[in-house]
Amino acid sequence: MVDIATRVWNHKWKIDPIVRSMIDNDFYKLLMCQSVFHNKPDTTVTFSLINRSKHIRLAELIDEGELREQLDHIKSLSLSRGESTFLRGNTFYGKRQMFRPDFMKWFEGLRLPEYHLEKRDGQYELTFEGKWHEVMLWEIPALAVLMELRGRAVLDNMRKFELQVLYARAMTKLWEKIEHLRRMPDLRIADFGTRRRHSYLWQDWCVQAMTEGLGQQFVGTSNCLIAMKRDLEAIGTNAHELPMVYSALAKDDTELAQAPYQVLADWQQEHDGNLRIILPDTYGTEGFLKRAPDWLAGWTGMRIDSGDPAAGAEIAIRWWKERGEDPLEKLVIFSDGLDETKILELQQQFAGRCKVSFGWGTLLTNDFRGLTRNDALAPFSMVCKAVAANGKPTVKLSDNPNKAMGPTDQIERYKRVFGVGEQEKMDVIV
Amino acid sequence: MVDIATRVWNHKWKIDPIVRSMIDNDFYKLLMCQSVFHNKPDTTVTFSLINRSKHIRLAELIDEGELREQLDHIKSLSLSRGESTFLRGNTFYGKRQMFRPDFMKWFEGLRLPEYHLEKRDGQYELTFEGKWHEVMLWEIPALAVLMELRGRAVLDNMRKFELQVLYARAMTKLWEKIEHLRRMPDLRIADFGTRRRHSYLWQDWCVQAMTEGLGQQFVGTSNCLIAMKRDLEAIGTNAHELPMVYSALAKDDTELAQAPYQVLADWQQEHDGNLRIILPDTYGTEGFLKRAPDWLAGWTGMRIDSGDPAAGAEIAIRWWKERGEDPLEKLVIFSDGLDETKILELQQQFAGRCKVSFGWGTLLTNDFRGLTRNDALAPFSMVCKAVAANGKPTVKLSDNPNKAMGPTDQIERYKRVFGVGEQEKMDVIV
Repeated sequence: MVDIATRVWNHKWKIDPIVRSMIDNDFYKLLMCQSVFHNKPDTTVTFSLINRSKHIRLAELIDEGELREQLDHIKSLSLSRGESTFLRGNTFYGKRQMFRPDFMKWFEGLRLPEYHLEKRDGQYELTFEGKWHEVMLWEIPALAVLMELRGRAVLDNMRKFELQVLYARAMTKLWEKIEHLRRMPDLRIADFGTRRRHSYLWQDWCVQAMTEGLGQQFVGTSNCLIAMKRDLEAIGTNAHELPMVYSALAKDDTELAQAPYQVLADWQQEHDGNLRIILPDTYGTEGFLKRAPDWLAGWTGMRIDSGDPAAGAEIAIRWWKERGEDPLEKLVIFSDGLDETKILELQQQFAGRCKVSFGWGTLLTNDFRGLTRNDALAPFSMVCKAVAANGKPTVKLSDNPNKAMGPTDQIERYKRVFGVGEQEKMDVIV
Repeated sequence: MVDIATRVWNHKWKIDPIVRSMIDNDFYKLLMCQSVFHNKPDTTVTFSLINRSKHIRLAELIDEGELREQLDHIKSLSLSRGESTFLRGNTFYGKRQMFRPDFMKWFEGLRLPEYHLEKRDGQYELTFEGKWHEVMLWEIPALAVLMELRGRAVLDNMRKFELQVLYARAMTKLWEKIEHLRRMPDLRIADFGTRRRHSYLWQDWCVQAMTEGLGQQFVGTSNCLIAMKRDLEAIGTNAHELPMVYSALAKDDTELAQAPYQVLADWQQEHDGNLRIILPDTYGTEGFLKRAPDWLAGWTGMRIDSGDPAAGAEIAIRWWKERGEDPLEKLVIFSDGLDETKILELQQQFAGRCKVSFGWGTLLTNDFRGLTRNDALAPFSMVCKAVAANGKPTVKLSDNPNKAMGPTDQIERYKRVFGVGEQEKMDVIV
């Protein structure tokens, strides 16, 4: 039996919305949003979309009208009653609420602010300017919309069974990775793939396949909506935007040098356990750790998000030992450019030396490489970053110069202040 | 929206019926049925299931109660109004009806006759005894039921995403074959895979994928129901059971020697064009053609169903030339143990020397080789054959002694009557 009502209903949609919920967003965005809401409520920030893969000419692939419709739809979203209840129910080990009542009250009334969209040189210039805790929530949905619209542009030219076989191949590809991963004992993997996913439905499929295929090895998803719908743990830490904006706001070099630690001092006040994860690479991991206050060594772990991951983990282990901590009690989270072979390699290398966990992103939720003509669905490197705070440009150095961002003079200043010397350039795949 | 009625309805089924229509059967069975209905209406025939793959212990895999339920369901089927209309509409080039009114009237009232089922040595002994034109219609549904129940026994142990990935892999596997085949110009392929299909739904998927992927290269399906539902040409010729039963009924060696030609004389009266296809191998192709009457050389083509297919086609071409026919006007249909590499090889070899067409069976609709643990879904060699007619045993020699059937003394007699010498043994895969 065809459900006539469903069919008629589906034909009434003017568009097929890509983002349909305020919490179809990364969980850590909400955590950081609360932190900003409490600590920096008056900061004006500009987020900007940056397509590092210039050969993907997004403005030629994606119709501007369609893009505006999708972004407008996101602006119309608000938190639903059930989503609010889910967020309020998230606690630290059942003891204390992660989201406080004053934040939740504000969030329930929030609509995402205006966007600015222009075409230039075959690319879209998409920016969001406004209160930090409002514009920051655009990052993930904006990336997801562009990635999915680019995918739709390719899929539009495919026929029915060709499409079915495309997804059959993508499913097989992921399942083969899962079959490799399940053989490794004590693995802990989370889905970090919202921002550059192929599509919402595909991410949802990937998460369910991971749940069945990996069982206890799959620890949760960064996607708040999918965590709620699929009864999984919402996973999140914190991101570069915190030290980037704090640093841009610094009045002088002395304050700048302290900014990355001030971020974590503010963070520490409201977070516990798995959320006390250091992200050390914004201005070079080595210098950050050398100058870090002792209380940071007491934190739960460290996230390695750029540079050679094994080298980063070695640095972390050495640092914990120097500070009198037992690395076996510490968690290293790898989250940069992972695929299943890299995951297995790192697990083999570090299991037994520290706790290890993986935040698997783009190659979990968007590995369509090799599945279409001209590889037209291969993921590409696109980010949406805070580029200015209260009118001052932000800077990111990271442990890979190819991931650096900001005006050249400011990059030089930051390198001097944070004592960053020579860095090894590494390709950024996704 | 969930369609509640569909869900409730689905839960009301006591079983999930494998064969749901009187015309979920090979089209040539219906053509032969009409021929028998007119020419041999009083013949009593026994059909018997023969599992040539003894290592597949069907009686241990398939529950007898389930098997009986499925067979009982088939007994409850009758021709629907729309199916009858479809059959009545099948014409020879728009000129003359394929199915005559007296046959259709009888067929509309038909219910399939009783079956006999016993377990022996880990196998099922399944036989059908009765009027030839009634029991012959059991062959295809009985095979399809056993093949699908064996599949279900394996699938019962699989989880949700494991199942989805299984079908994803099977889809990919078929699509890759289609991608190879579509590169070959002038190919003509039909689906001949009903009897040993993985399941009805899977055959239906394969046929639709072939339709999209091959376009005009895909000429139709032998499955009458799928032809009707998917708006395709129903394809069929004739089968070994005709000469086997006619031969068993022969009063003496002289009549026996003529029996295979008498079959085709009867067939010729009611069939035209693509249905005038010689199946020469029942008692050895070489002898059959040598002694064939000249009018047979005027037929449309020949089906090569055992032995080395290239050798068979060479024999056919040579024979047509000897009889003064132009092979370029003649159609060779390959239908034995085909897969896409064999198809491409034969096409390359014979295109330009005769018309070529392929009846692709088991490895189209049931290639699950290598997709499960212990290859538990790999197809196997099972047939359902006429083993006796009016109490006398039937015999088949074919061009491959591994496909021979019948009592040893009768096999020797037939070899003598039909002048069959040494034959090359070939493995029977499916």
